[in-house]
Amino acid sequence: MHVLHRDAPSAGIGNDSGGQAPQAWEGMNYAPVTPEVTTALEALLGSRNVAADLEKREAYSYDEVAKQFWEEPHLAEVVVFPETTEQVSALLAFANERHIPVTPRGAGTGLSGGAVPACGGIVLSFERMNRILEVDTENLTITVEPGVVTADISKAAAREGLLYAGDPCSGDASFIGGNVAENAGGNKVIKYGPTGASVLALEAVLADGSVTWFGGKRRKDVTGYDFAHLLVGSEGTLAVITKIVLKLLPLPARVVDLLVPFPDTESAVTCASKIMTEGKILPASVELMDHRSISLTERFLNTRLPGGDAGAHLIIQLEGNSAELLADEYERVGDLCRKWGALEVFVADNRNSRDKLWKARKSIAEAVIAFYSKYSKEDVVVPTSAVPELLKALGDLCERRGLETVTFGHVGDGNMHVNLLFGEDRQNWKETMEEARRELYTVTQQLGGTLSGEHGIGLKRKKYVSHFLDEAQIALMKRVKLAFDPKGILNPGKLVV
Amino acid sequence: MHVLHRDAPSAGIGNDSGGQAPQAWEGMNYAPVTPEVTTALEALLGSRNVAADLEKREAYSYDEVAKQFWEEPHLAEVVVFPETTEQVSALLAFANERHIPVTPRGAGTGLSGGAVPACGGIVLSFERMNRILEVDTENLTITVEPGVVTADISKAAAREGLLYAGDPCSGDASFIGGNVAENAGGNKVIKYGPTGASVLALEAVLADGSVTWFGGKRRKDVTGYDFAHLLVGSEGTLAVITKIVLKLLPLPARVVDLLVPFPDTESAVTCASKIMTEGKILPASVELMDHRSISLTERFLNTRLPGGDAGAHLIIQLEGNSAELLADEYERVGDLCRKWGALEVFVADNRNSRDKLWKARKSIAEAVIAFYSKYSKEDVVVPTSAVPELLKALGDLCERRGLETVTFGHVGDGNMHVNLLFGEDRQNWKETMEEARRELYTVTQQLGGTLSGEHGIGLKRKKYVSHFLDEAQIALMKRVKLAFDPKGILNPGKLVV
Repeated sequence: MHVLHRDAPSAGIGNDSGGQAPQAWEGMNYAPVTPEVTTALEALLGSRNVAADLEKREAYSYDEVAKQFWEEPHLAEVVVFPETTEQVSALLAFANERHIPVTPRGAGTGLSGGAVPACGGIVLSFERMNRILEVDTENLTITVEPGVVTADISKAAAREGLLYAGDPCSGDASFIGGNVAENAGGNKVIKYGPTGASVLALEAVLADGSVTWFGGKRRKDVTGYDFAHLLVGSEGTLAVITKIVLKLLPLPARVVDLLVPFPDTESAVTCASKIMTEGKILPASVELMDHRSISLTERFLNTRLPGGDAGAHLIIQLEGNSAELLADEYERVGDLCRKWGALEVFVADNRNSRDKLWKARKSIAEAVIAFYSKYSKEDVVVPTSAVPELLKALGDLCERRGLETVTFGHVGDGNMHVNLLFGEDRQNWKETMEEARRELYTVTQQLGGTLSGEHGIGLKRKKYVSHFLDEAQIALMKRVKLAFDPKGILNPGKLVV
Repeated sequence: MHVLHRDAPSAGIGNDSGGQAPQAWEGMNYAPVTPEVTTALEALLGSRNVAADLEKREAYSYDEVAKQFWEEPHLAEVVVFPETTEQVSALLAFANERHIPVTPRGAGTGLSGGAVPACGGIVLSFERMNRILEVDTENLTITVEPGVVTADISKAAAREGLLYAGDPCSGDASFIGGNVAENAGGNKVIKYGPTGASVLALEAVLADGSVTWFGGKRRKDVTGYDFAHLLVGSEGTLAVITKIVLKLLPLPARVVDLLVPFPDTESAVTCASKIMTEGKILPASVELMDHRSISLTERFLNTRLPGGDAGAHLIIQLEGNSAELLADEYERVGDLCRKWGALEVFVADNRNSRDKLWKARKSIAEAVIAFYSKYSKEDVVVPTSAVPELLKALGDLCERRGLETVTFGHVGDGNMHVNLLFGEDRQNWKETMEEARRELYTVTQQLGGTLSGEHGIGLKRKKYVSHFLDEAQIALMKRVKLAFDPKGILNPGKLVV
């Protein structure tokens, strides 16, 4: 049996219109933030929760997309720090009335420009709505405000013997609100799904300021359209999330990580897909670091990794409640890896060795930023069986164009973080990057993949969406956006609108 | 820490307006199916795929909501049986142009009137789009047409050593298309989530006949709004699904079911929540049968169940890859059950004993239909910790009103199937049923629960939605419905529109 499903035309992604600079949504004319507006915001939120100085405005106008990426800055006109849902409600009612854009912002760890105020206006920072409101050990839920740091949720759950399954690499800094808005993936998607799979309910403020709850503290719910999960990944364009109820699970008693060096990336990615298909084992994680990721991270952390000379590493996480079963399982995975070309299998079964291993994996993105100022972090996702072909095409294109790349990511779910890197002295780097991205996207599409697996579209990838989604879908997205936000004040310039 | 989240006003559900008879969507005036329309449909789909005789029209105008439930029949004007996506596309383009309602229909096993043609028009049966198109053992997916019987998907997956996690009780008869449209739950939601959690991609025909794919053969995807999962559970009101890509998982090597009799329902439901919270074990299923469910099923199947005299049964399913670990786990669960009042713990660890046990559980709904013609099958869901309180209130209301009830269901996820039963000679049964439902819904709401966990709103529960969702949400639903289906031809009269 065979069906090849490709959801977009397979023609290459041409060098069409659409500059780097964002465009306001179809010529929307937003009102400026005048001193009178700032005064009104101070009256609504308290003056301590409103900042109009240039330094703050600049600090809250970027995320982790390199500043050099943008042709021109996108500057917040004012930054607000509400402390309550009521303040968010008052803010939106006011902004909607006045037709001023509102860009919600988490910790600024995003990689798509999702929190960049593309059309100016108000940046709404959630850093003062940062309370864990409840850990419910009877219903296995945790209720939080959007400004809670992701890792703090995991810790609060673990203190009760429970697991919050979301595990983005930026989790020590990112806010859960941003994770929900972008549907962050992370290291445990194979087993637990992305952030949205843990979302049970959202309190949201609609564009007109009305406050409502989507979903509830319930494991299932078919009462009405599933708007809670439509908001997940909608990048703040449909509503502003003010409370989040997340599902928790019993915490696995034991966790083991394997660090498995391979002679080259190809053998590593080929092996990765065999763990589930041949081994019939469902790990929590299967992560890839290519050789350059390994060496860049060693340099950044000033450390040596086991098997650091290898062509590539897989990191495989297994969980269980029995030491013996887990040992049996990692033996089986180890055998399978060796069969598929692994050089060695290192077992990290205590907190120290596990932390060291994951610190390396989680530092790659930071290491790239530390050593390069000119880069594009890509986030393509393909069917897992197509990862080897994707990486082969990537190797070809880099060689042809004389490009450096660091490639790592969630190989277990087909989501590869391809980093295109440019030295300080590289001429015409933006043109080269643009051409390389288009070629990468074309291959991705031909393999049945898509533009972004977890980083989001935001401002950075918006102009490529029309190559992956057809006209009918884009028209639908615009109509649904209008259904939620008729005046277009919520994070304008993102996704397709 | 404590936050009580209630998403709707806590006032009781009053005896407000809204009769049993459905209303066309806000006075929409649909065109009738004239002989000329039937001829045109025959030209589009082939005459063998169009049925206009009264017998067929009647046969395709009901689901498993008791016929006696409706004040008046809702009769299809014509029934069509397309064989391809292209035919569905041609059909919708035609119906949209002519403004004729289209009600998609699976196997008719629904429990909310979702497939009942509330406004007449065309019933679109999927029984001739019933092919399994691909089992992809590399990407762990299965691609099917909507008319495939759910159990056949599980079997096709199992032949490759893979698991399709959807497991509705009606799975031997239901079509996967209906499961997706209703976001069917079933017996494994605690561990695997409802149907939607297995959906990776949908081919859909929009109201105007355009064909598109939402999602892909990808484990994650944030490229655009998540319309694939918005369609899940939307009851055919937004688009018509024509292909479905489902996620598969490695098949657990071993499965054990425990049948655990308790002296009464209260002790059974109290114990149910302890398996995860106290035992820290994540079972695949935790199901409840109350005493009346047990005896009704024994009578229906003409058999005796182990512990059939007990006040209630829990059925607990555990999965694993190791016989020893699984034995260890069921010993622990058994100890916990005994601690919480279990009378005995029966272990079903072979195919025969497991089949017998599940046959009983899965036959309750049918047994109710066999012995009663007047009933209402309710599907309320509450936070798991509130199940004991819900059932206590149910007991009170039944005693007060002299009502029979059979209560069973997915106690592990808080979703209880409360069946209100009426003898043949019961006077004013509809009024009594109506009052009892309202009281049940009021209690459900007060406990933080909602109207339907998995059966859907459809025609049956539509008039109660406004008691569970606020005005802002209902207005949003109507606007989103219009964004997808501007002329309101898709399954009108369901949900809120």
